[in-house]
Amino acid sequence: RAAFLERIAEEIEARGAAITEVGHLETGLPRARMDGERGRTTGQLRLFASHIRQGAHLDVRHDAALPERKPLPRPDLRLIQRPLGPVAVFGASNFPLAFSVAGGDTASALAAGCPVVVKGHSAHPGTGEVVAEAVLAAIEALDLPRGVFSLVQGGDRRTGEALVSHPLIQAVGFTGSLTGGRALFDLCAARPQPIPFFGELGSVNPMFVLPQAMAARADQIATGWVASLTLGAGQFCTNPGLAVAIDGPEADAFARHAADGLAAVGPQVMLTDGIASAYREGASRVGAGQGVRALHASEPSGRNATPFLYEVGGEHFLAQPDLAHEVFGPLGLLVRVADTEQMVQVAQAMEGQLTVTLQMDGGDLDLARRLSPILERKAGRLLANGFPTGVEVADAMVHGGPYPASTNFGATSVGTLSIRRWLRPVSYQNWP
Amino acid sequence: RAAFLERIAEEIEARGAAITEVGHLETGLPRARMDGERGRTTGQLRLFASHIRQGAHLDVRHDAALPERKPLPRPDLRLIQRPLGPVAVFGASNFPLAFSVAGGDTASALAAGCPVVVKGHSAHPGTGEVVAEAVLAAIEALDLPRGVFSLVQGGDRRTGEALVSHPLIQAVGFTGSLTGGRALFDLCAARPQPIPFFGELGSVNPMFVLPQAMAARADQIATGWVASLTLGAGQFCTNPGLAVAIDGPEADAFARHAADGLAAVGPQVMLTDGIASAYREGASRVGAGQGVRALHASEPSGRNATPFLYEVGGEHFLAQPDLAHEVFGPLGLLVRVADTEQMVQVAQAMEGQLTVTLQMDGGDLDLARRLSPILERKAGRLLANGFPTGVEVADAMVHGGPYPASTNFGATSVGTLSIRRWLRPVSYQNWP
Repeated sequence: RAAFLERIAEEIEARGAAITEVGHLETGLPRARMDGERGRTTGQLRLFASHIRQGAHLDVRHDAALPERKPLPRPDLRLIQRPLGPVAVFGASNFPLAFSVAGGDTASALAAGCPVVVKGHSAHPGTGEVVAEAVLAAIEALDLPRGVFSLVQGGDRRTGEALVSHPLIQAVGFTGSLTGGRALFDLCAARPQPIPFFGELGSVNPMFVLPQAMAARADQIATGWVASLTLGAGQFCTNPGLAVAIDGPEADAFARHAADGLAAVGPQVMLTDGIASAYREGASRVGAGQGVRALHASEPSGRNATPFLYEVGGEHFLAQPDLAHEVFGPLGLLVRVADTEQMVQVAQAMEGQLTVTLQMDGGDLDLARRLSPILERKAGRLLANGFPTGVEVADAMVHGGPYPASTNFGATSVGTLSIRRWLRPVSYQNWP
Repeated sequence: RAAFLERIAEEIEARGAAITEVGHLETGLPRARMDGERGRTTGQLRLFASHIRQGAHLDVRHDAALPERKPLPRPDLRLIQRPLGPVAVFGASNFPLAFSVAGGDTASALAAGCPVVVKGHSAHPGTGEVVAEAVLAAIEALDLPRGVFSLVQGGDRRTGEALVSHPLIQAVGFTGSLTGGRALFDLCAARPQPIPFFGELGSVNPMFVLPQAMAARADQIATGWVASLTLGAGQFCTNPGLAVAIDGPEADAFARHAADGLAAVGPQVMLTDGIASAYREGASRVGAGQGVRALHASEPSGRNATPFLYEVGGEHFLAQPDLAHEVFGPLGLLVRVADTEQMVQVAQAMEGQLTVTLQMDGGDLDLARRLSPILERKAGRLLANGFPTGVEVADAMVHGGPYPASTNFGATSVGTLSIRRWLRPVSYQNWP
């Protein structure tokens, strides 16, 4: 199985130039980005290969028999994790390689021993096809059963609905929108035999700028924020769309720097026309919010995204929960809270998130200690003095979080722990 | 937290006599059974105390920073499992201690760090009350926040519905019927923020008697089966209600022995009037099945259960899937299959189960090898040459299985692995 994953990585590399070319044309993503994402994808496949060679994911446990125990003897019990069965994977539009046909869900499910049926995303059918060829070539080279992997392309919404409703499918991995994800989640729960739906639905990824850090380096934080916010045209699940800071002259400086930084960001091609038009609508919606002021406005046209920066007072923000919803694209909202109390209130009011970031200095520790217990209930990953884009594929990564960030906050969709989604324990009692 | 669990165990022991007396009067279970179950319950609490002292459940992972890595440095990442939040627990009628107020779900959720709200079962309110007193005494003794544990008693179905719908509840543990469990599962999935529902719904626990074992020791297997089938008046989730054997003179001998054994079992008081009347209905339903013959019939009256033994041919059994459904009580059904092929078909047709048992000898290994890959997809626990009643509380136990045995076949409700249901991973990036 590990050899299979490694072979897929090799077959993808052998098709590297074609994948980059097709992907660039289909998605508008720069060629360098396609190359980088290919490296992430093959690295991910190899990481799972080495992970399953170690075997810790099997959770092997053994309680030896105690035949002399009173009042009753204990039987011999051995536990091991076994694959759930066939898994349906829905690729994301925003990572045509790393979260798609042979992305993290597929790699972890194959590593667990589950056959995979991928529903290819309509934003990059050609890229998906070439990657599927690579997987099929690996199957052929290693003489594995063909049913181990299939790619379903095209069709409308009913294709996906039929896939998750199929009685043989035992679990679903999904990366995409809240609306689409929730609809499929509901279908999975309503089946005669309900199955788990692991949906990663994105989030607004708030960044709290604590007072000492703001006083010490407002410029630097603003620069980093602008870069992270606009990375990939703001089409990452982890772009930090929300900054929370205490009102005052430092926040003014931060806002000015961020606005200047965004003004220098040129238009970026978005993944699909639908995403681009949803972005324009989202920007209008936020801009029309009560008490919302524009710090940097732009006129995105066609499939191009240009950045926006808005600001709003803490009270107005708390009164309009809609303002906390993700706008997929390079749009930032600065929430100017009156004081630390209101900052804590904003933290408490937050929905589930993939990530939450604190910008903090030594003098901010007391406030950070107040915020931490609130924030770690709200997000799967907490960052100090960094930016959330760039989701490391590692053992200790969590990409997931309380709903609506994901549908299953006991799970992660990135990192080696993600294999656990596709496993179930079986116990063997006195088994020969 | 471990000290809290141990203190609960002590407080339960201090109330041991009262618990046994009240429980015996409420449930009709023998005093010795109440004493034994109390030992299981306190042992379970202490097992979780020692389990969390070891810390393996926290799944601590650390990826150290690689500041020199190209093209991008790796941040420092630390992962730890954190409690999900408040958990609702629905106790079972059939284990007024071990699967109730301070039973496995409560013990594992408290061990994980989750506050617990128990919906007490109406079949043993007094027992529940005394156990809740023990938990509250432990809270008081250790000066813990009162909100860590509550018991809700009485009310109709709407009480449970309100509990699982409460926005602060983050997960549910349930042991009970398929109908009741599925209704609550559906409510959990339909919430604005869906939450996981871990329901253990019981199963018929098939036992396959392979030919060599049958030839060698039909009597012995029949005797063991009768004992396991009638244990606790057949009111365990793991009573083996179904035996599958190849038709022939050995099966005749097995059937005769089982019928004789059951004839010697006297009436046993069932837990509630509702369970007793459902048992009588179930017995009539099976008896009226096409091709079903009675080998031992009885006339249960009032709250007393008396055993039944039926037999049916493999073809008739496969044509009537209803016959494979659990009848809660001491009712056995012997399926006489024509040959090993039909035995394999019966295995394939099975729904999800908590347990499956093989009675096998050395000469049965080939057939066992054919059945194993089918059966391990159907059940959470596989036994060789044993009987499934007696669910060991251990590291390697799995009490769960594919739907309808449980609603979440990646989980177990017994054993230390059950703590995983109440945990979610959080990753800390460059966190001070």
